[in-house]
Amino acid sequence: MTLVVIGVGLIGGSFALALRRAGRVAKVIGVGRSAANLQRAVELGVIDEASHSAAEAVRHADVVLVATPVGQMGRVFAEIAPYLPPHCVVTDGGSTKSDVVALMRSHLPAHLAGCVPAHPIAGSDLSGAAAAQYGLYDNRRIVVTPLPETRPDAALLVRELWQACGARVYEMSAAEHDAVFATVSHLPHLLAFAYVDTIVAKADAARCFDFAATGFRDFTRIAGSHPEMWRDIALANRDALLVELDAFQATLAALRQELVAGDAEAMTTRFERARAARQQWQQHFNRGNA
Amino acid sequence: MTLVVIGVGLIGGSFALALRRAGRVAKVIGVGRSAANLQRAVELGVIDEASHSAAEAVRHADVVLVATPVGQMGRVFAEIAPYLPPHCVVTDGGSTKSDVVALMRSHLPAHLAGCVPAHPIAGSDLSGAAAAQYGLYDNRRIVVTPLPETRPDAALLVRELWQACGARVYEMSAAEHDAVFATVSHLPHLLAFAYVDTIVAKADAARCFDFAATGFRDFTRIAGSHPEMWRDIALANRDALLVELDAFQATLAALRQELVAGDAEAMTTRFERARAARQQWQQHFNRGNA
Repeated sequence: MTLVVIGVGLIGGSFALALRRAGRVAKVIGVGRSAANLQRAVELGVIDEASHSAAEAVRHADVVLVATPVGQMGRVFAEIAPYLPPHCVVTDGGSTKSDVVALMRSHLPAHLAGCVPAHPIAGSDLSGAAAAQYGLYDNRRIVVTPLPETRPDAALLVRELWQACGARVYEMSAAEHDAVFATVSHLPHLLAFAYVDTIVAKADAARCFDFAATGFRDFTRIAGSHPEMWRDIALANRDALLVELDAFQATLAALRQELVAGDAEAMTTRFERARAARQQWQQHFNRGNA
Repeated sequence: MTLVVIGVGLIGGSFALALRRAGRVAKVIGVGRSAANLQRAVELGVIDEASHSAAEAVRHADVVLVATPVGQMGRVFAEIAPYLPPHCVVTDGGSTKSDVVALMRSHLPAHLAGCVPAHPIAGSDLSGAAAAQYGLYDNRRIVVTPLPETRPDAALLVRELWQACGARVYEMSAAEHDAVFATVSHLPHLLAFAYVDTIVAKADAARCFDFAATGFRDFTRIAGSHPEMWRDIALANRDALLVELDAFQATLAALRQELVAGDAEAMTTRFERARAARQQWQQHFNRGNA
């Protein structure tokens, strides 16, 4: 099996390493814009061959993983569209899915049967081929969001490949995926950025930061995330994110009203409900990661 | 020196232990409603004597630390008011200060020269006398908020006692204190509770929690805090908290508008500003806790 990885970084490189170790690929071709990064990937044994032409590389591919930022995927899909072998399966590693599906529909209309959008839940601050690592996907979650047009055997192959990487594979629609991640990931990033940005504007900002402690540290950790990456995710998942944001603002407005009214009972109910859910989640999370 | 600790738990008990080790107290009398807790405190060497009557205990006190929840402080101040020796210094361990000042003004009007409100920044999930520990205040911050009426020697004594506990003492007004902690502590707790409570209400709550990962874990950790305690803090510091909440809601509304408009530049500026401030804070925090 020949695998083409377009965008040889943490996600794409670790996928290649895991599949090679699992004996699932005979040849890996890496495509990217940085010659230095591709050379490093060859030296590290992440890929067998480097190519600067996605069009050229996919001609003999059995599977193509597009692991670039989502913002570059439209260009990549358009470039490979004329050259994809009919049997070739195309998947991706983007963290939003409705927008990737739209790009596939727009640029790969004749190849939708081979398209299997996917989101590996495995983040890191590291990037580049040197960040690729064995074991990145061990016990991690992968969400696949096949299209109605996707061939069953294509969806099955992508599931099997991720399972061979050690990952647990889940399937849902792109819309369901985007709603879930707007809720548990994209919205908290937005809130953390907005919260810290509110402090920056304050007259007593220096004194505030001076007294911020461990609660602040944990609550704001994700405000240290990559600004452009999260801007792109927020914009890519705008519709779902606005739904979550509005729901949160409604809760916050209700809580504000309870605070103004001194409604201790309503506040207690709300805080207890949140704490109970958080504690239950923590136990569930600990078990899942034990 | 005779120290009376009213409310022998983590805060009050650890204060007594630290002062005894520093050789600053000859006798510690503990006051509380739970006979079992007081007996445990005597057994553990946290206090020398137990008393169920705050009025009786303070008759020969040099320093009184009121370390009960803020909600009980009015009753305590009223009870001890007729029995406080003129030279006796009264301090507290409450995490809000304007409300404690108001209670002191209301219940200890003849004793304001001896009043030194304080907030030791040393939290824990533990409670009761058994939670008292040596070293709790090592290198921790204490904010004292003396009144205009406070005698300089009373304020100095409280500063010295906390320094003898190993703490770093800062002074500001009660209003400044409450604004700072509304910003860096009370508001994030409110936001974390509101965020988790918003998820609980969702139709796909179970699936959302299922895919929540480490970003969610850290962002929501403080939503696992004690509901009644945080309800009381929010209500006690309502005015300052509403100011911070409104500022946050304004930022969030602006960010929402940028998202709707697809204003990538404004979002990038905002996220970069937040990340830079967060990173600078983290370095500062790491140095302060090294």
